[in-house]
Amino acid sequence: MLRANDPKVKTWVNVPDDTDFPIQNLPFGIIKNKDESHVASRIGDFVLDLAILNKSGLLGVDYVQELFESESLNKLLSIGKENLRRLRDRLSWLLDERHKDLSENETLLDACLLDIDTVEILMPLQVPNYTDFYSSKEHATNVGIMFRGKENALMPNWLHMPIGYHGRASSIVVSGTDIIRPQGQFKLPDQENPVFGKSRQLDFELEMAFVTCRENEQGSPVNIEETEEFIWGMVIFNDWSARDIQAWEYQPLGPFLGKNFASSISPWVIALDALEHFKVEGPKQEPVPLPYLRNEGFNNYHIELEVYLENESFEPIRISHSNHKYLYWNIFQQLAHHTVNGCNIQVGDLYASGTISGPIKDSFGSMLELSWKGTEPLQMPDGTERKFIENGDTVIIKAFAEKDGLRIGFGEVRGKVIN
Amino acid sequence: MLRANDPKVKTWVNVPDDTDFPIQNLPFGIIKNKDESHVASRIGDFVLDLAILNKSGLLGVDYVQELFESESLNKLLSIGKENLRRLRDRLSWLLDERHKDLSENETLLDACLLDIDTVEILMPLQVPNYTDFYSSKEHATNVGIMFRGKENALMPNWLHMPIGYHGRASSIVVSGTDIIRPQGQFKLPDQENPVFGKSRQLDFELEMAFVTCRENEQGSPVNIEETEEFIWGMVIFNDWSARDIQAWEYQPLGPFLGKNFASSISPWVIALDALEHFKVEGPKQEPVPLPYLRNEGFNNYHIELEVYLENESFEPIRISHSNHKYLYWNIFQQLAHHTVNGCNIQVGDLYASGTISGPIKDSFGSMLELSWKGTEPLQMPDGTERKFIENGDTVIIKAFAEKDGLRIGFGEVRGKVIN
Repeated sequence: MLRANDPKVKTWVNVPDDTDFPIQNLPFGIIKNKDESHVASRIGDFVLDLAILNKSGLLGVDYVQELFESESLNKLLSIGKENLRRLRDRLSWLLDERHKDLSENETLLDACLLDIDTVEILMPLQVPNYTDFYSSKEHATNVGIMFRGKENALMPNWLHMPIGYHGRASSIVVSGTDIIRPQGQFKLPDQENPVFGKSRQLDFELEMAFVTCRENEQGSPVNIEETEEFIWGMVIFNDWSARDIQAWEYQPLGPFLGKNFASSISPWVIALDALEHFKVEGPKQEPVPLPYLRNEGFNNYHIELEVYLENESFEPIRISHSNHKYLYWNIFQQLAHHTVNGCNIQVGDLYASGTISGPIKDSFGSMLELSWKGTEPLQMPDGTERKFIENGDTVIIKAFAEKDGLRIGFGEVRGKVIN
Repeated sequence: MLRANDPKVKTWVNVPDDTDFPIQNLPFGIIKNKDESHVASRIGDFVLDLAILNKSGLLGVDYVQELFESESLNKLLSIGKENLRRLRDRLSWLLDERHKDLSENETLLDACLLDIDTVEILMPLQVPNYTDFYSSKEHATNVGIMFRGKENALMPNWLHMPIGYHGRASSIVVSGTDIIRPQGQFKLPDQENPVFGKSRQLDFELEMAFVTCRENEQGSPVNIEETEEFIWGMVIFNDWSARDIQAWEYQPLGPFLGKNFASSISPWVIALDALEHFKVEGPKQEPVPLPYLRNEGFNNYHIELEVYLENESFEPIRISHSNHKYLYWNIFQQLAHHTVNGCNIQVGDLYASGTISGPIKDSFGSMLELSWKGTEPLQMPDGTERKFIENGDTVIIKAFAEKDGLRIGFGEVRGKVIN
């Protein structure tokens, strides 16, 4: 077992019992500390500034300072999984209650262990490529029923491969960024020609995304057994969608302006290593996938997913409760499929899951499904209804894994829709 | 008129009469000079190393040296259109036969004006985002007829907006890079389940792409009148496509592994300014586009496009002759559409046209169309036939504009298909 994963280790940092960020989490993110962008980790309600820690010499190995004095995690991720593991282990050692090298160095502590409310949390990645998969069978089936009827709900290809498409990297923003309702073309049911205006069907999509830490050569597929070495961690992903724009534009080449105005991610990249304890078997795959997609055993993650809606006139209410384990195609199959034709992965790429819907209505991962295309509006605490997301609404997605007294969380991704 | 565009200016450089790169072209690219990557321009069969020229002080303005000592044009492009214009004008001045500052400085000349055969030409851009449009009506109609029949050839949305989708940025390579035939899933006509193997229907797509030099804020659309200030220039683009993989995977989210194994671009970014002389009116747009897409006058470019096929057993033969002017949706409409929902452009982005097919068979821009889905194979000089591209074939696309004795060319993009 990696030291950083050991559930018995306790920290000298004052951490709430129910925190998403115990000493077994130790994610990476980017903070602004006195006008400089630094790599940081998080423990409880503190951030640990790794740029300052590295300068002190306490990280032990000779890490180049520019790995930590950076506006993104990309350089750090490119040192590869083994080196990142060593770094996480070292952080665990320094924060361990049995070790005093950091805890008793008051000057250093003041500089590097900061109350999270005193720093700004920035976009953690400079995303070279972003792909969105479509790997929840329940979601694909729901959408299929709504748009093509029950008979043709799943396309013939869906059970044979993880369907995916390329998304827009430039418009991915960090949690907390306001989302401006997009304008565009769409068709009204009673009209021949499209109209132009602000989207009337703005939606969220409950997703998670994995982040890569290694490149393959163009033309060289990554075998499914090797895929885990290419993936460092995961974030929560909200793939904002304008359903009216999307419906009018998507044939025959797929979603475009209905999606590319914004996607939001949570700020802390949680290591796959930290989630090892929560691996479970995935859904049975029938037909058996082609050999390049075959992996057996525990390849899914039991991660609870919750969506809340908040507004000036009401407190956050939970509108969906799903789980990452529902994904039919797991992340290792996704990466193997993506590269089987020789497509090359870059460090810092984001690969999103597609909307993760579960089997029952409360677990659906979008308003499109929750309100069944607007036919079954959700009731809000202030007496209003929601078919889609309204201006002034904030969508909050939370994710956490919990088992045997250990909780590893992602925090949240939130975004307020404005006009 | 910009000095750099003046057709009367002559250069002291020894340049062939029929060159694609007269003194009125002055494109930007990246070369390797003694193991260092430098920004360069090209004139005739010489490259002009701008990193060395800038160090000499002859560029006049105080350009930061790192703009030119770079592995991509991105930093240089980010100085914006006005500054880039000034730089091109200065190059024109230095290469003008009436000026001797550079022509009589032999030591500097030896270092900065290099025979093109003595340097390596590199990928010119680090591409943050790549979008592929679908803007040739002839191409969309041809493909529509083949896959959906004559009645439903054009989708209802096609005449209302420039349909596009996001492509893969990481796998865009420079001319001369070999293309490895991709493997993947596809369906054979007589079988129930997909098979796995090397693509049997590898195709090229004759496209051009424009390159951006300015960013808009996320949430702020670019008005169509402003779009020209966001576009610095264009390159030739070959959007390699595996038709069998694409046909099986593309529903409902669009092309993915059938495209993302590789796209090839020509190495010199030709300034829109240099093409100003070749602007023409585009096809009549009926219905009249929505206001945000309306631009009148000369918004298309009369650029000849040629595709050649070459093999060990035969010299290059021309298999297609098309023209950029056939594009139904022009590049300014494409950019206005892309940003109308608030999507943000980044510097160095590539926006490809989609396959540019003309009205007659000889002008079709893909093997899919030229061989009409394999039903009308092309005859090769060695007696063989081609339905699609075979291993050992090299596809060469050339582009040039010519009028009133002035020729501005793009050179070529070439790629050999290997197994």
